[in-house]
Amino acid sequence: MTENIKKNWREKIHEIIYEADTPAGKLFDVVLLILIILSIIFVMMESVKGLSEKMYDFLLYAEWIITIFFTIEYIARVISIKKATSYIFSFYGIIDLLSTIPLYLSFFILGSNALLTVRALRLLRVFRILKITRYIGEANKLTRALKDSRPKILVFLFAVLVLCIIMGTLMYIVEGEESGFKNIPVSVYWCIVTLTTVGFGDIAPVTPLGQLIAAIIMIMGYGIIAVPTGIVSAEYAANKKTIPLRNNTQVCSNCNEDKHQNDAKYCHNCGYTLFNE
Amino acid sequence: MTENIKKNWREKIHEIIYEADTPAGKLFDVVLLILIILSIIFVMMESVKGLSEKMYDFLLYAEWIITIFFTIEYIARVISIKKATSYIFSFYGIIDLLSTIPLYLSFFILGSNALLTVRALRLLRVFRILKITRYIGEANKLTRALKDSRPKILVFLFAVLVLCIIMGTLMYIVEGEESGFKNIPVSVYWCIVTLTTVGFGDIAPVTPLGQLIAAIIMIMGYGIIAVPTGIVSAEYAANKKTIPLRNNTQVCSNCNEDKHQNDAKYCHNCGYTLFNE
Amino acid sequence: MTENIKKNWREKIHEIIYEADTPAGKLFDVVLLILIILSIIFVMMESVKGLSEKMYDFLLYAEWIITIFFTIEYIARVISIKKATSYIFSFYGIIDLLSTIPLYLSFFILGSNALLTVRALRLLRVFRILKITRYIGEANKLTRALKDSRPKILVFLFAVLVLCIIMGTLMYIVEGEESGFKNIPVSVYWCIVTLTTVGFGDIAPVTPLGQLIAAIIMIMGYGIIAVPTGIVSAEYAANKKTIPLRNNTQVCSNCNEDKHQNDAKYCHNCGYTLFNE
Amino acid sequence: MTENIKKNWREKIHEIIYEADTPAGKLFDVVLLILIILSIIFVMMESVKGLSEKMYDFLLYAEWIITIFFTIEYIARVISIKKATSYIFSFYGIIDLLSTIPLYLSFFILGSNALLTVRALRLLRVFRILKITRYIGEANKLTRALKDSRPKILVFLFAVLVLCIIMGTLMYIVEGEESGFKNIPVSVYWCIVTLTTVGFGDIAPVTPLGQLIAAIIMIMGYGIIAVPTGIVSAEYAANKKTIPLRNNTQVCSNCNEDKHQNDAKYCHNCGYTLFNE
Repeated sequence: MTENIKKNWREKIHEIIYEADTPAGKLFDVVLLILIILSIIFVMMESVKGLSEKMYDFLLYAEWIITIFFTIEYIARVISIKKATSYIFSFYGIIDLLSTIPLYLSFFILGSNALLTVRALRLLRVFRILKITRYIGEANKLTRALKDSRPKILVFLFAVLVLCIIMGTLMYIVEGEESGFKNIPVSVYWCIVTLTTVGFGDIAPVTPLGQLIAAIIMIMGYGIIAVPTGIVSAEYAANKKTIPLRNNTQVCSNCNEDKHQNDAKYCHNCGYTLFNE
Repeated sequence: MTENIKKNWREKIHEIIYEADTPAGKLFDVVLLILIILSIIFVMMESVKGLSEKMYDFLLYAEWIITIFFTIEYIARVISIKKATSYIFSFYGIIDLLSTIPLYLSFFILGSNALLTVRALRLLRVFRILKITRYIGEANKLTRALKDSRPKILVFLFAVLVLCIIMGTLMYIVEGEESGFKNIPVSVYWCIVTLTTVGFGDIAPVTPLGQLIAAIIMIMGYGIIAVPTGIVSAEYAANKKTIPLRNNTQVCSNCNEDKHQNDAKYCHNCGYTLFNE
Repeated sequence: MTENIKKNWREKIHEIIYEADTPAGKLFDVVLLILIILSIIFVMMESVKGLSEKMYDFLLYAEWIITIFFTIEYIARVISIKKATSYIFSFYGIIDLLSTIPLYLSFFILGSNALLTVRALRLLRVFRILKITRYIGEANKLTRALKDSRPKILVFLFAVLVLCIIMGTLMYIVEGEESGFKNIPVSVYWCIVTLTTVGFGDIAPVTPLGQLIAAIIMIMGYGIIAVPTGIVSAEYAANKKTIPLRNNTQVCSNCNEDKHQNDAKYCHNCGYTLFNE
Repeated sequence: MTENIKKNWREKIHEIIYEADTPAGKLFDVVLLILIILSIIFVMMESVKGLSEKMYDFLLYAEWIITIFFTIEYIARVISIKKATSYIFSFYGIIDLLSTIPLYLSFFILGSNALLTVRALRLLRVFRILKITRYIGEANKLTRALKDSRPKILVFLFAVLVLCIIMGTLMYIVEGEESGFKNIPVSVYWCIVTLTTVGFGDIAPVTPLGQLIAAIIMIMGYGIIAVPTGIVSAEYAANKKTIPLRNNTQVCSNCNEDKHQNDAKYCHNCGYTLFNE
């Protein structure tokens, strides 16, 4: 009997925390989202000189309240799921842990609470909360197009890197230290800055030959940018119609699997019952 | 009888102001366009030191003449339409109002007439005036491709923002205040400047680790730019043939609805007669 | 008889100068190309301090020799064609004239010979000389894709310009003169620099609000760049297979029309005989 | 008999060095890859002041050990292949030679060992070592899309160059030497920096007319970037399905030909037996 009640109690927490189908679940998610955003704003404000001194007490208390809430939420997430490890070692599990630890660490290590902005990653939860069929579908399509393009993009980035090492060394030899190209790593850095068309201008070639090579690098960068764009375009156009939408926010309380079919009654991963009240 | 004459008088003004099919309507639109462009040039000239002192009197009078014309035009637009509110609260209605108010406000608030450049938005009227089938069709296609891509672009921009918050904080921790990364918001700003490949160079990393992270951000930015391009490309290619052109410049004098079929005789929104003389 | 000989003489010059099918015509074109490139290099060298003083005499003579050759060539082009006006007022006719005049003008106006680099435009003749089927075909395809995209690109650029005027004025109001935004035209210029992701960094926002707006402009620019790319991509993909290649270098000696079919015997414009020896 | 043994001995070396199908061949390739990467890191470290002084002895010995290994490997490659010239004059043959010579040269010429980073090109061997079907396929597709786009890209780059020469000269005339546009080549360099949206900011226009022209160049650059992207997109999409994958790492020991079919037993180039043990 007690076992049964405990199970129900755990299932209810699971429903509130992990899902967004019930009013309580939705409310929880909205509160969580607001706290995440507030927390990021507070960490940012803390880094601003002048502002942080004026509002020192407020920011300190606010940080602690939010962190304690996040800690409770983390514990609740761990105990409300059957296989705790499937949550703890998941992407969100690690992010959730990392978003609470830094403040506790700040007792021992100075400046570690700047790491609190890792909480920004928690913002990704927003997509589940909004639960707008369209938006989740779009994110899925985007993710899949990117995933399909990954090997090509890696090959491309590798080629760009080799090119930057070669051209960077060449610029180091041509321009020398007095122009700001003080060693090969810095020259390679400059070459990446130039090839990607960022162009800070803190380092710039001054010799005619250096400027000629720089011009060649720029025109190459200008032409090369077409490659990833072409790849993603083609992949995206090919994927456009073939992806079935899955926008069910149900999460299996046993194995933490999500992305169930809209009308799923059992988890497609472990067969456990889904709670579609 | 008087009612009838008044109605005709209002309909004539409506035809001149809102439409571009008759010679009078075309002339009005061209005069309006020239005044809008002149007005923007005058506001710009006013802001240029030296020039504004030499031409002070001329600019002052010119501004007032144009503003009075715009005010009369605004009133004429309001009274010549049946449902005045449908114009007043429309996009152009608000722009038209905002383009007259600042100068009157300049009696009370210093510098408010710089806001007059909001008139630039009125330039968008040019598309209706030119009434070139092709151009309106192109604008429609572009607008529709952008509208269809909106959810994807929003998801994309959101991901970029989260990335910039994370990387910006990282750079703040790595580089510190002496390199110009004086607080997290500034670091996030720098990260946006770098990821979008703008690269002002007013802030630039100086430590080897900072330059390594910057290089990673740049290469990510270089690869990420492929995503919106791919999306718009695919949407645009998909829409290319499916959009019917609508280039009728008729505007219903009752409900202010435009975008009627070329051979429409009655407003498709309220059933009011369109004046196709 | 004399008339006939003269006609033949004119036709021969026409063949050598305007066409690239015969050995003499090819040789002429190659010599012309080399002279154009040399001429550009000499004008560039002249602008380099130190270099120009050392080589003053050489550069002066070289310039004059090339200019006299170009002048003779221009006269030969005019007299060897039936309807001289069809050449004189064509694109190449004007370029050819402009590439000779500046040096003669340099007797009267100082520095006018810097305009000699207009000769660079003559380099476009290279495509006819190379007469590589593939390259001409590619250039035609590119030109046609760009021509088809023109109305869209114009609408797009107009929208970008209106956006830059609005945002530039906003930045002028927010940042003010002490940050380098000294008047509205400069602010609009800065906005174009930022939106196109060039980012010189000579002017950069310093206030938090200014940096926020700048960040928005950059992200807009980053997203907006997708639009022209998408347009050209789609147009280019659509045109890819539908363009017949025309790589005949024959030019009608009567009306100066080119782009004849490969097996054309008569000018498709005026019916005059083409000389396909 | 001895002839036979020698042949077997040469074939074994060939198998280890040129192929990646056997455990010994794989091990050799991995060791080679690690040495290449280490060698590049050492050359980079050598260029960093302070670091190079502290670790002088270590870096010197490391460089020599790696170079001697590369030299032995080069000799082994030459003697283990039937037609030595087919390797010596191939792309990798030249790279392999260039990656050993600079250190020997450093006895005679100061600073020549900076050229050792040419070894980075050897990294391209990694694709053969990894032997991941997918990655090689992707690299082939990319290479082919780029190869197909080459004539178009050349035409495009040529047009960009002519544009930069014209606009650069114009800026030289408009801005003059006091703004940093000290001669035409520098102005052309600046124009390339601007058109490719790099924008270092070491040179920037200061006169209103110069800024207007710069704005036009930027917007052109912003629009022009669409062209190579569109080309590569279209080519890539067209090629997507038509390329058969070839991921056999076998290299003919007679003629050095690679890219054999997966089930090839004889070299498709010279008919020599392939060793598919």
